[in-house]
Amino acid sequence: MIDFRSDNTGRAAPEILEALIRANHGTALGYGADDYTAALQRHFSELFETAVRVFPVATGTAANALALASLGPSWGNVYCSEVAHINTAEANATGFFGGGLKLVTVTGSHGKIAADPLAETLAGISPGQIHRGQPSAVSLTLATDLGAVYTLDEIRAVSEVAKARGLKIHMDGARFANATARLGCSPAEPTWRSGIDIMSFGATKNGGALCDAIVVFTPEITEILAVQLRRAGQVWSKMRFASAQLIAYVENGLWLDMARASNAIAARIAAGLRDIPSARLLAPVEANEIFLELPSTTMDALETDGFQFYRRSRSLTRFVCRFDTTEAEADALLAALRRHLAPMATPRAAE
Amino acid sequence: MIDFRSDNTGRAAPEILEALIRANHGTALGYGADDYTAALQRHFSELFETAVRVFPVATGTAANALALASLGPSWGNVYCSEVAHINTAEANATGFFGGGLKLVTVTGSHGKIAADPLAETLAGISPGQIHRGQPSAVSLTLATDLGAVYTLDEIRAVSEVAKARGLKIHMDGARFANATARLGCSPAEPTWRSGIDIMSFGATKNGGALCDAIVVFTPEITEILAVQLRRAGQVWSKMRFASAQLIAYVENGLWLDMARASNAIAARIAAGLRDIPSARLLAPVEANEIFLELPSTTMDALETDGFQFYRRSRSLTRFVCRFDTTEAEADALLAALRRHLAPMATPRAAE
Amino acid sequence: MIDFRSDNTGRAAPEILEALIRANHGTALGYGADDYTAALQRHFSELFETAVRVFPVATGTAANALALASLGPSWGNVYCSEVAHINTAEANATGFFGGGLKLVTVTGSHGKIAADPLAETLAGISPGQIHRGQPSAVSLTLATDLGAVYTLDEIRAVSEVAKARGLKIHMDGARFANATARLGCSPAEPTWRSGIDIMSFGATKNGGALCDAIVVFTPEITEILAVQLRRAGQVWSKMRFASAQLIAYVENGLWLDMARASNAIAARIAAGLRDIPSARLLAPVEANEIFLELPSTTMDALETDGFQFYRRSRSLTRFVCRFDTTEAEADALLAALRRHLAPMATPRAAE
Amino acid sequence: MIDFRSDNTGRAAPEILEALIRANHGTALGYGADDYTAALQRHFSELFETAVRVFPVATGTAANALALASLGPSWGNVYCSEVAHINTAEANATGFFGGGLKLVTVTGSHGKIAADPLAETLAGISPGQIHRGQPSAVSLTLATDLGAVYTLDEIRAVSEVAKARGLKIHMDGARFANATARLGCSPAEPTWRSGIDIMSFGATKNGGALCDAIVVFTPEITEILAVQLRRAGQVWSKMRFASAQLIAYVENGLWLDMARASNAIAARIAAGLRDIPSARLLAPVEANEIFLELPSTTMDALETDGFQFYRRSRSLTRFVCRFDTTEAEADALLAALRRHLAPMATPRAAE
Repeated sequence: MIDFRSDNTGRAAPEILEALIRANHGTALGYGADDYTAALQRHFSELFETAVRVFPVATGTAANALALASLGPSWGNVYCSEVAHINTAEANATGFFGGGLKLVTVTGSHGKIAADPLAETLAGISPGQIHRGQPSAVSLTLATDLGAVYTLDEIRAVSEVAKARGLKIHMDGARFANATARLGCSPAEPTWRSGIDIMSFGATKNGGALCDAIVVFTPEITEILAVQLRRAGQVWSKMRFASAQLIAYVENGLWLDMARASNAIAARIAAGLRDIPSARLLAPVEANEIFLELPSTTMDALETDGFQFYRRSRSLTRFVCRFDTTEAEADALLAALRRHLAPMATPRAAE
Repeated sequence: MIDFRSDNTGRAAPEILEALIRANHGTALGYGADDYTAALQRHFSELFETAVRVFPVATGTAANALALASLGPSWGNVYCSEVAHINTAEANATGFFGGGLKLVTVTGSHGKIAADPLAETLAGISPGQIHRGQPSAVSLTLATDLGAVYTLDEIRAVSEVAKARGLKIHMDGARFANATARLGCSPAEPTWRSGIDIMSFGATKNGGALCDAIVVFTPEITEILAVQLRRAGQVWSKMRFASAQLIAYVENGLWLDMARASNAIAARIAAGLRDIPSARLLAPVEANEIFLELPSTTMDALETDGFQFYRRSRSLTRFVCRFDTTEAEADALLAALRRHLAPMATPRAAE
Repeated sequence: MIDFRSDNTGRAAPEILEALIRANHGTALGYGADDYTAALQRHFSELFETAVRVFPVATGTAANALALASLGPSWGNVYCSEVAHINTAEANATGFFGGGLKLVTVTGSHGKIAADPLAETLAGISPGQIHRGQPSAVSLTLATDLGAVYTLDEIRAVSEVAKARGLKIHMDGARFANATARLGCSPAEPTWRSGIDIMSFGATKNGGALCDAIVVFTPEITEILAVQLRRAGQVWSKMRFASAQLIAYVENGLWLDMARASNAIAARIAAGLRDIPSARLLAPVEANEIFLELPSTTMDALETDGFQFYRRSRSLTRFVCRFDTTEAEADALLAALRRHLAPMATPRAAE
Repeated sequence: MIDFRSDNTGRAAPEILEALIRANHGTALGYGADDYTAALQRHFSELFETAVRVFPVATGTAANALALASLGPSWGNVYCSEVAHINTAEANATGFFGGGLKLVTVTGSHGKIAADPLAETLAGISPGQIHRGQPSAVSLTLATDLGAVYTLDEIRAVSEVAKARGLKIHMDGARFANATARLGCSPAEPTWRSGIDIMSFGATKNGGALCDAIVVFTPEITEILAVQLRRAGQVWSKMRFASAQLIAYVENGLWLDMARASNAIAARIAAGLRDIPSARLLAPVEANEIFLELPSTTMDALETDGFQFYRRSRSLTRFVCRFDTTEAEADALLAALRRHLAPMATPRAAE
């Protein structure tokens, strides 16, 4: 079996689990008042080239929902893409933690939201009106849920529209490492230097084990987030074991090394697909995910071959590369696709 | 420094962290659809001598609040002790996850709730009345927040009153291991055999690292709990790393060995206190916590000596024993107490 | 000034206010335990030809949100039209009262939802999955937010799909009188005989003053609705004054007389528009609302003439007829439209 | 039958219902953008001798819960008396609208909260701690739920403690008229001049019909309250009919005339009780409620005589005087009490 199902089916980086064992000595105050959590603040502040506050949390859903709940009132509207994970796959955690907060979708390409439709949507809601909730925040997914990555210009265009209306901006960085590796810039660039107030910093999908994080760039958010995290049961009493994981994740560039590895495999597959005219990508492959339109008979054939992947619809598949997916696995997938699609090219064109 | 601050300041059992490393191979489906999580169900079902459903969660607060949210409607009243952790120290997570659910306190000794006042309280709320919410559930803390442990008879008396009114029963088992070790009975006895529908199964305070669990005894709760856990961001995508910890925790009786160790240290201190007439215990020492009334000058003196502990008020201290607290540490504390209290016995009597 | 802004800008029927004065004698138990509220149950049960439970509430928003909150869990998805009032104009009251419940839109024509896209949406959510919430209810707006009215067949087609999946069905009857007058059938037909479990029974827009109602057809909903209404501050202590209004509203067919009057005026305008080719209706005029696409210069001109109406966008207007809107007012509007649109027909075609 | 059950069992003042009829002409913009609602602001600003913002709402429960929800975050603690209506009789509406907000009780005499225990409670919660929620607001009930009335000094003492900690202060004025009549001062004195930020202004219990109000003294609250009221379904579209009631209520001192009348009847009964040594009042009679400890046999006898009242426990009754309760009714009650209690004085002493 060759597993392309998800980046959460994979192993953790051994460095991260070993860090847990190294952290297991002596006693330490609970709930984040320990030395590891203090060191975590320094590591991330250095990484982001500014003083940030980092809160480890158990999952990306917790990171997204609680970050958004900290940005505005329960009658707020949060603008996001139709395909954003918060809108499609998190059991409306954002609406729940936000006390009834509403997600409002904004159009854009490949899972992004675009500045112009956002501006138009906001123009339709007068400040002070009481019938439609009030614009509160925008949520961008840096490596989108269709595998594309925002350019810095795209982030800044959205940010400008949002800031002009006084909205806060959240970044869903479930695949922040993959996106940053792709952009090839400092983590500061797509985040606070582009107006991001708070982000979900994903680690699990990229070789992490049991924690992700919320990173706060705008200090006034910190206090109201902290108490909400405690109330949400997201503050481990033995926090050092979470902080140690995140330190190991970013130390010595491990996080970017892993992301570059999975990106490279995805790029290798995408490059190989260029020779298979009937294989159509739904979006450019800019991170570690490949959304590929395939006939369902091809899906069946791939599964028979031993490939594991998700069927997103009757004609859409998703293949995800992990940090430890090998070139051989990529090449095997390409070979299988070539094998199955070549003879089908003609009938498929007739679909 | 000798640390009696909390059982959450301590190390994790090495067996638990090693289990993480052993689980780190191959790929596995996310969100609990993996082999470790399946094995966890078997381990706990064996432990409890009945088919149970176990959900690993990040913290005891999450376990308590989400277990209670699964037991009744948002307009429900949950009855608990005034000093219950859910009422005093979890940022009203229960009220939040319960959608406005209300905690109503019931009297009892040493952090327990007693059957008679519960019955009286319930008698005051007619079924169908709409002004006061509706009785929904009872929450018992097996090893209470004052260090005592319910007898089986006490649990069953409360349970009988609750069941007569159709209420569900939750057990906060933050120190379930310590209480079970004390009771010396099967884990089934104080739980489902006494009418408990759902419990928070604590591991962190007793040598765990990053997860506790919810154990469901009443099957119809399972489905509504599962979706609420997902929404709460309490379902790890790489769940195997949580399940592996909990398996290691209960395998070979590790959990009870650790609990017996911390209980024994607490009992050793309690026994030693009998010779110090001016040291007054707030409640019997039946688990691993000691609540001791002390003059604040004695508290100061202990701190100068290098002891770490919590001041619960100007005249109340808490000392907590961990699985790795040593007899020497216990004896050092007793010696210090003898030293400081002997000359103060007379003035203190005059307080 | 001639007011076509809304049916809530109008007067109340004098009969309704006089009923208040007649109810003002003696004492009566509070919170609905009075004779008027008992009589209300009988009046509505007769009207609907089945035993129903009626709860007066202050507003249609309260009726919608609390009816929907009574139909399912806080992690439920409620399916509605994109233009449904609950989705566009009630400050996400449904999400709030539903504890984070999510509105999911389903396509259809003229503000309706259609059975096929509903079936397709539901097919995409497996029972028991935890990531996307769970299908919980459908909300239909009988006289839609674009002025059309569901046929009985259309309701039943949607209902059949919903029931097959075990979903409950809510009807937003903000303009139930207008729709019922249009359908020319018993109120039982579009409601419980078509599978509706609960409805918002609007009165305010059709000559009411200070209350609407929730009508429950499926008895098991009653108890959980009652306590939620109390908690929502929607249970008047002097309930007789609300019940008396609703009795007067339906007594002697007053409600249908008023609805027929406003429908007739709207139909008169719609008929007149047929002679004005450049005036394009967004949807068929089947109740008392007219959605008319107009150039903004025509809107300006109408306002200068003294007509009041809402601009829904730069090219869309809404004209609403009240029970006391006169034929002369309708004819004046038509005359003005003819006057302004005739010379503009050509340039508008070039838009 | 002579009805002392509640002040909500009574009639409305005819002036209030007549005002509805007078307001029923012409068209008016909805949701409070009408002339009556504008006039209401002026009436109340004059009454309170400062610019206030008044929001009519359907019920006192809505007023209390939404006022408190506007004062602080969902993780806030609101301090109130154990017997406060918000804590005992409103289905935890405050917890619900507050998104999980917690009521924490503070001791005091006769349904009041006292400054010293409040200060002590607050001292126990450090700013910035995350485990116990955060102090957010205080709620005082001016005419308490045991029939007493705060003195201005008592309010100011509580207010001083609250303000020192940065807490907002809410007044439950369900019987504000009775309390103001008792205090004999300007409505400004016990409210904003004593530090109150927002109040529930009750009308229903004192001759109102279908609305109470929230009065905002601290302007920055207004905007976040307005949208929450809309979301709560508490903003009538035909608001003029609510505003007209409240204008009639305060115009020409009607509200205080009615309150003085009910207070006088209660005082007459209290005075008469002085001659009945075995009739023990639970609290001083300072408004229109009488809490009287009586043997249950006496309760039975009074009911046989045709008196209606509430039994609050096996030994406690409540008698409430309405604006139209007559002196003859009061005297009949006293006569009956004398008749039943005289022979029972001795056995009761033996209870």
